[in-house]
Amino acid sequence: MAESVIDAARRAREAAVTLATTSSAAKDATLHAMADALLAQTPRILAGNADDVARGREVGLSDTLLDRLALSGTRIAGMADGLRQVAALPDPVGEVVRGATLPNGLELRQLRVPFGVVGIIYEARPNVTADATGLCLKSGNAVLLRGSSTARSSNAAIVAVLRDAATSADLPADVVQLLASESRDSVKELMRARGLVDVLIPRGGSGLIRSVVEESTVPVIETGVGNCHVYVDATADLDKALAIVLNAKTQRPSVCNAAETLLVHREAAADFLPRVLPTLSEAGVRIHGDPAVVGYATDAGVPVIAATEEDWGTEYLSLDLAVAQVPDLDAAIGHIRRYGSGHSEAIVTESQSAARRFVAQVDAAAVLVNASTRFTDGEQFGFGAEIGISTQKLHARGPMGLPELTSTKYVVTGDGQIRA
Amino acid sequence: MAESVIDAARRAREAAVTLATTSSAAKDATLHAMADALLAQTPRILAGNADDVARGREVGLSDTLLDRLALSGTRIAGMADGLRQVAALPDPVGEVVRGATLPNGLELRQLRVPFGVVGIIYEARPNVTADATGLCLKSGNAVLLRGSSTARSSNAAIVAVLRDAATSADLPADVVQLLASESRDSVKELMRARGLVDVLIPRGGSGLIRSVVEESTVPVIETGVGNCHVYVDATADLDKALAIVLNAKTQRPSVCNAAETLLVHREAAADFLPRVLPTLSEAGVRIHGDPAVVGYATDAGVPVIAATEEDWGTEYLSLDLAVAQVPDLDAAIGHIRRYGSGHSEAIVTESQSAARRFVAQVDAAAVLVNASTRFTDGEQFGFGAEIGISTQKLHARGPMGLPELTSTKYVVTGDGQIRA
Repeated sequence: MAESVIDAARRAREAAVTLATTSSAAKDATLHAMADALLAQTPRILAGNADDVARGREVGLSDTLLDRLALSGTRIAGMADGLRQVAALPDPVGEVVRGATLPNGLELRQLRVPFGVVGIIYEARPNVTADATGLCLKSGNAVLLRGSSTARSSNAAIVAVLRDAATSADLPADVVQLLASESRDSVKELMRARGLVDVLIPRGGSGLIRSVVEESTVPVIETGVGNCHVYVDATADLDKALAIVLNAKTQRPSVCNAAETLLVHREAAADFLPRVLPTLSEAGVRIHGDPAVVGYATDAGVPVIAATEEDWGTEYLSLDLAVAQVPDLDAAIGHIRRYGSGHSEAIVTESQSAARRFVAQVDAAAVLVNASTRFTDGEQFGFGAEIGISTQKLHARGPMGLPELTSTKYVVTGDGQIRA
Repeated sequence: MAESVIDAARRAREAAVTLATTSSAAKDATLHAMADALLAQTPRILAGNADDVARGREVGLSDTLLDRLALSGTRIAGMADGLRQVAALPDPVGEVVRGATLPNGLELRQLRVPFGVVGIIYEARPNVTADATGLCLKSGNAVLLRGSSTARSSNAAIVAVLRDAATSADLPADVVQLLASESRDSVKELMRARGLVDVLIPRGGSGLIRSVVEESTVPVIETGVGNCHVYVDATADLDKALAIVLNAKTQRPSVCNAAETLLVHREAAADFLPRVLPTLSEAGVRIHGDPAVVGYATDAGVPVIAATEEDWGTEYLSLDLAVAQVPDLDAAIGHIRRYGSGHSEAIVTESQSAARRFVAQVDAAAVLVNASTRFTDGEQFGFGAEIGISTQKLHARGPMGLPELTSTKYVVTGDGQIRA
């Protein structure tokens, strides 16, 4: 097993050398060939998926997880569409990021170049297999996929189809490889493959991400843990606040940019909490409140759970919401600095100075003023696609599109210059 | 000891909150106050330095290391000048990297923001203490300095002076802190301070850098190891090649962008090697040659050492040069891919297609065409100052100026937008 990850990484490096000088047109043609192949080979992919779903049922996977795992003709067509959309995006490789002619006549250019080999570790969502391959290929990177064993037959079928399509389009099949998922050994090997793998992107729960960050010697980009807050300021427009809180919590509670905590300025509490708590409750939200919130909820006849210290740090990913009253803006900022995960933090306010201070002092990938946290998303931001949302500060922060899957290289051209 | 690094990091985080919203004018005033204080307190710094130099002599430090360690009035004035030059550079913080108004009216801006807390681990060069502080302060970061114990009295005096100056300019003294250097414990604690320290930049030998990369859970930016090559192509202008090889090897052999290996195309060897080998030898360079080069050297009466496998991977940092003849451009690229450290790689050629292929296929921070490797440098590139030269692909690659000491933050401003 150990040997095979290293072998795969070596083959990926070879493929990456070819990919680094493959034209945009050739990469796009390959993406379309892959999309065509996914459609043509739908029965083969569905057969693999049926095995996974049957196995998942046997081991008692939850309905939510089974739904993420299950493919259909429509979902496979969606994967194919995704590849075509990536083909339509501008190629980041070769972009001149900056350039100058130096005083001694040297021409300096900083160009975007592929990383080389990207490793992705992810959970049982077979669509990620095609999506990640498309983004890595377009950005000139070979990809090593380490999916979940729960989706192993689906992933094997999809990757076989994508590799055949790469070959048919005259690229090496090893631009995409699936690593064994039967044990954690392949994850461990991947994390130690420094020098062969250029960057590792773990997508999944906070436990997985923490263990990769702790153990990996390959550079890691952390993605996706979102303990996001909405803060309703003293001067908030309460209609906007109500809509934003409801949207941020309930529009899709299982994703990282959903809100997990609502903070309400003391001066807004008496007007806002009696409105928002019943609305949330009617939408199926379980309120975990601090003592002040418990009081308002009880007065309004809304079920409420007394929040514990743990609630403030929890990413529920469900219809649960921690709610606290805060004495002022500084207390809201302090709370977020203490408990936030650096993903998306929103303020609802009509005050320019409050907005300005919140934006400056909250340390997160995205800070939103009078808008739902749900907007932190590559497609919403207009990037066309995203490989994940980085919550770290190095290299990329926030939604990661194609440029974030590249490095740069300085090219210096002269006619014999030497340094004095 | 362990506690005090964590305590220092906590204080640095507090100082960083202030720094993140300190105006450019206030930061520049502080840099000038620091420069003034270095000049005013020169006797105090020289006294500390005299202790270090005396201790260094006792333990038998080499003349080169003693020269790096020793300060003088002129050198301290140089440190002060460096701070004033950093003050004169544009402030990277707040720069709008990209922006758009989204279809739903949301205003999206990606802004440069400070990292927060930067840790620097470095060797016995007291000037780095002031230089790194200046760059971190200007980019809005608090800095934790872990210098060498060899320079501990010098560093203590410099940091005390800089902290007093910060206070006098109404910034927290904890924008700069010196960590204990008596044992490696402080390095270990620093490497594990994930969440408190945002990025760690080790500056020094390859052993130090490798151990930090292996052990750190704090994100690391690798700097400075340079096994740089000059490749002389079949079509090279041999006058340019001679000047470039001599400059790249001998102009300052102890630095990371000096050349360590010369590769010569077989078709150029008979004309070039009989010229370059005597010239290098006269300049004091020891030649480590492959069999072909040993032949040419012997014919020319130039002393030569037979190169071993180890020579191709060695960063000599001295007047030694490995020299090999290669059959063609592909072999040169293959050699560099195998042995290079991803720093600076130069080709000397009159062929457009050879230059183009070398630039595309050599994987390094800087690729130079008809120019000396010695140009890979923040000041030479026009960045005004540099904190180091990154040889990794994540976040920053090549000379790192002020923008490379920042992260970014998305700011999304609306008037109540929710996601459909």
